Amino acid sequence: MSVRAAPPEAPSTRKGRATRERVITAAADLMYRHGVAGTSTPAVRDAAGVSSSQIYHYFTDKDDLTRAVIAFQTETILSNQAPLLATLDGVEALRSWRDVVVDAARQQNGAGGCPLGSLSSELSDDHPGARDALAASFMAWSEAIRAGLEAMIDNGTLRPETDAATLSLALLAAVQGGLVLAQAQHTTDALEAALDAVIAHIHDHAVLPA
Amino acid sequence: MSVRAAPPEAPSTRKGRATRERVITAAADLMYRHGVAGTSTPAVRDAAGVSSSQIYHYFTDKDDLTRAVIAFQTETILSNQAPLLATLDGVEALRSWRDVVVDAARQQNGAGGCPLGSLSSELSDDHPGARDALAASFMAWSEAIRAGLEAMIDNGTLRPETDAATLSLALLAAVQGGLVLAQAQHTTDALEAALDAVIAHIHDHAVLPA
Repeated sequence: MSVRAAPPEAPSTRKGRATRERVITAAADLMYRHGVAGTSTPAVRDAAGVSSSQIYHYFTDKDDLTRAVIAFQTETILSNQAPLLATLDGVEALRSWRDVVVDAARQQNGAGGCPLGSLSSELSDDHPGARDALAASFMAWSEAIRAGLEAMIDNGTLRPETDAATLSLALLAAVQGGLVLAQAQHTTDALEAALDAVIAHIHDHAVLPA
Repeated sequence: MSVRAAPPEAPSTRKGRATRERVITAAADLMYRHGVAGTSTPAVRDAAGVSSSQIYHYFTDKDDLTRAVIAFQTETILSNQAPLLATLDGVEALRSWRDVVVDAARQQNGAGGCPLGSLSSELSDDHPGARDALAASFMAWSEAIRAGLEAMIDNGTLRPETDAATLSLALLAAVQGGLVLAQAQHTTDALEAALDAVIAHIHDHAVLPA
């Protein structure tokens, strides 16, 4: 690609936004299935049904497109989970969130892993910009979980001194590790075991006596 | 590469075994740092200080070399951890294992992730042979953890009805997910949170009353 004087501007028309979205969605799908290294710009172009010049109109380079995919995957996960997490009213509701996570993995027999976890595994060591974006994504995800635990503190389900920040990291790690193992083992056993263990710990340590 | 009539035989001489080991070690290091797709045979050749024909003398193709790397990384992890796990005599010993895992991640500031987890994330979806090998590796690792929990059952630390198989999967998922997050976040906070939560669950649910 030629050197550009400035990064592409955000599309100002509805059609432009739709084209940009179509490129991101196609790239996200290809990168999820084949990794970033295994996803070429021509493959994105063909999958999105756009021209190469349209891709380069909206994205400076592959790193720029990859950052847009990270933002897209983060938004997808959070828009699915945050409403559920923000209104947690008890341990049963936490278990319902766990079921949503497990069911999603089970539907694809564990294949694919977590879109963000897979991107992080591929990119974090060699691409500092992507690593920063992924660290921020994981932070946003753990903050959404933390919001759920804090809602449970607020409504009296969990003790006020419950360490919601640490427990939200434990739950997110259980999700990530469970999905790594599901991808290799094609079962959700480890995902369920890890989430159940952390939720049991939350339940037994933090729930106010009845 | 030319089509071969039969897969390469294991080296019969000490020098042959040393050459083969050198190729595997170099490939493991490169694949850990740059992924399998990012590791070329010439790069392995140069890093190992061997000729291409020596590599092809010992490995049919890159898939064959990758399987050898999976076996090498599994052996490395298990030879580090299995002796510690096999002699667990209490929850404090389990916490010592947790410290070994956390310290190893902290020493590289979380970078790199788990060698097996990273290989699985890259290979499981598109390389069924590698996925089978990685599933077996994770199984061997969780069996080593399970042996530790069973030693704690045998010596009376844990209740006889403790579900060592499920808890070992939860611990392994905590390790894997904690390492995924450490790679992006460059802290071991999530790794520690997840391991501590699962170990607290084991401690509080399974320890016999004093």
